[in-house]
Amino acid sequence: MNQMDDILENVAIGAWVKAFSRAPGQANAPHESDAELIELPGDPEHLLAITIDTVAEEIHTGLYQESYTMGWVAVMASLSDLAAVGADPLGMVVSVSAPSGRDSGFAESAGRGMEDACRSLGVFILGGDSNLTSEISLTGCSIGIVPKSAALTRRGVKPGDAVFLTGRAGIGNALGLVKLSGLPDEYFPESNYRPSARLAAGRALRDHATAAMDTSDGVLTTLDQLMRLNGCGFEIKCDWPMILSEDVLALCDRTGTPYWMMLAGPHGEFELVFTVPATEAEAFPEKSRALGFDTIRLGTVHQKAVITLALPSGRQVDIDMSSLRNLLDTSGGDLSHYLSEFRKMGGSWGLE
Amino acid sequence: MNQMDDILENVAIGAWVKAFSRAPGQANAPHESDAELIELPGDPEHLLAITIDTVAEEIHTGLYQESYTMGWVAVMASLSDLAAVGADPLGMVVSVSAPSGRDSGFAESAGRGMEDACRSLGVFILGGDSNLTSEISLTGCSIGIVPKSAALTRRGVKPGDAVFLTGRAGIGNALGLVKLSGLPDEYFPESNYRPSARLAAGRALRDHATAAMDTSDGVLTTLDQLMRLNGCGFEIKCDWPMILSEDVLALCDRTGTPYWMMLAGPHGEFELVFTVPATEAEAFPEKSRALGFDTIRLGTVHQKAVITLALPSGRQVDIDMSSLRNLLDTSGGDLSHYLSEFRKMGGSWGLE
Repeated sequence: MNQMDDILENVAIGAWVKAFSRAPGQANAPHESDAELIELPGDPEHLLAITIDTVAEEIHTGLYQESYTMGWVAVMASLSDLAAVGADPLGMVVSVSAPSGRDSGFAESAGRGMEDACRSLGVFILGGDSNLTSEISLTGCSIGIVPKSAALTRRGVKPGDAVFLTGRAGIGNALGLVKLSGLPDEYFPESNYRPSARLAAGRALRDHATAAMDTSDGVLTTLDQLMRLNGCGFEIKCDWPMILSEDVLALCDRTGTPYWMMLAGPHGEFELVFTVPATEAEAFPEKSRALGFDTIRLGTVHQKAVITLALPSGRQVDIDMSSLRNLLDTSGGDLSHYLSEFRKMGGSWGLE
Repeated sequence: MNQMDDILENVAIGAWVKAFSRAPGQANAPHESDAELIELPGDPEHLLAITIDTVAEEIHTGLYQESYTMGWVAVMASLSDLAAVGADPLGMVVSVSAPSGRDSGFAESAGRGMEDACRSLGVFILGGDSNLTSEISLTGCSIGIVPKSAALTRRGVKPGDAVFLTGRAGIGNALGLVKLSGLPDEYFPESNYRPSARLAAGRALRDHATAAMDTSDGVLTTLDQLMRLNGCGFEIKCDWPMILSEDVLALCDRTGTPYWMMLAGPHGEFELVFTVPATEAEAFPEKSRALGFDTIRLGTVHQKAVITLALPSGRQVDIDMSSLRNLLDTSGGDLSHYLSEFRKMGGSWGLE
């Protein structure tokens, strides 16, 4: 776990965690699962899963400009954490803070984003809180239940395991690139960013995956965190047309953006990264289709705690995500500095 | 329920509620309980209670200046909603947004406020989320369970019921008066504002109260909301030394502030207002002491949907809380206008 402290976000979370006593009936330790898992007094067969997520930074930096997107993501970000522990959702509560929190226009369209996200997954908003603030901030809190013997966590990755993704990735970083570089909206319209929580996949993975975590902070950040938690690394086969969404590939081609940036950036989507024992790996894609979801083979878990990209050229490049993950903190909110340093990072890793 | 729409906050909440489909297993309708109540698939005897509360406005208006207070209230506000439905808490998650969210000083003292609040009630923080924002905003979400047959709601008040309070009130509005009028801190130190959620009382009231609601928005706002929901009013015996905390009475005397303002203001504490059938009323204070909590008799429920203050002078004054409750919205953030209009309100009601 020592490697965890190389990441400033982990340290920041640690400062809060340090203040709090540990709950007796809690099944997970800090950082070890996407949602918190706690015993239910009246139901010894299940754990209650609970998770809270605030959408604020993405709004202030201009990544989300449509109220609908803000509402959609506030719901999905939270449900995605339930997906990553394999939970069946019981419902959500939301807290909405906005200057126009009492202006029905904002409520109408952010509320529609929330409701559409919920309806697409059969989940319900049970209630919430509203506040008048000068900045918009939307918080979603989801609860669910998961069989005690089968809850998924981020721990359990073993060398030799195969690592998969529940769908093509990159739309989060594609949106980030367009909004932060000030590219015209048509390069990647905000409405292309409608990531969905993989609840059905998470449920099905309960009996198969050795570990799971969502890609809300980008695919490589997810792999990096899994690496630090489990003490083993990943070899990722960079078959770009298989890993990245078509509209993401098109954006990269049109703007001359290297593909790796779409996995390395910190704004992800809500796919799951999960690992499966070597013995199940070959048959898994077919099995997952039978279970009702697609999987993309990302690569293999190896002993050494490093992420190795196997590029289409045949070259293998070891990357160190720590400076990139810390870049948002160290660049102190200067987004153009952030973007130029981000691009340079590839060069330092030996990427073109 | 039509009277509900006279209150702008109810209308604002309604705009969000309108966007959302109603959950099939939810036991409460909007506005009808302090926490949301939902069926638990594996435990037919209990409901899950869940509630979310954001502390942001109180910080931006300068009511809370100590990080410790912000953390303390973020926890208590949420647990108080569990108290008001009679739930046993299972735990909490928190979302912390701050400019210095990654500065360990803020985390240390706000975290200590949260932890001390939790420890005082035997509750645990299970996890959370942290965000870098330009304004501080703390959100707490609590979960608990309550026997299905015994959950408390805001509905069920009957003419003839006695109305009680779980403890002396007014500290929230006392703090508001001092901070918003710029009075010296020693008039009412921020550290005097450490309201506690009445979890033990809430649990005990499951078998006795006809309805309950917390005083987070002030005692008279609570009574006004109960009046609108139940279609009956209250006669409140204004025995100030019994109803208001000693330090609140002292502040009023020192500053020439009328006592009624300490019940009428919108910044409350976390006592419970609850009603008990007439037949139990006489014996109730003694019974509550045996159950481990104090109660203060506020008055009686009457048929007519109005709040009547029975003043120590013997005069009876009917008050209409709607314009006062809407004043925060209609004065558009102008706090000095708010304060002067607030004082005038008493005159319009016929109060000295």
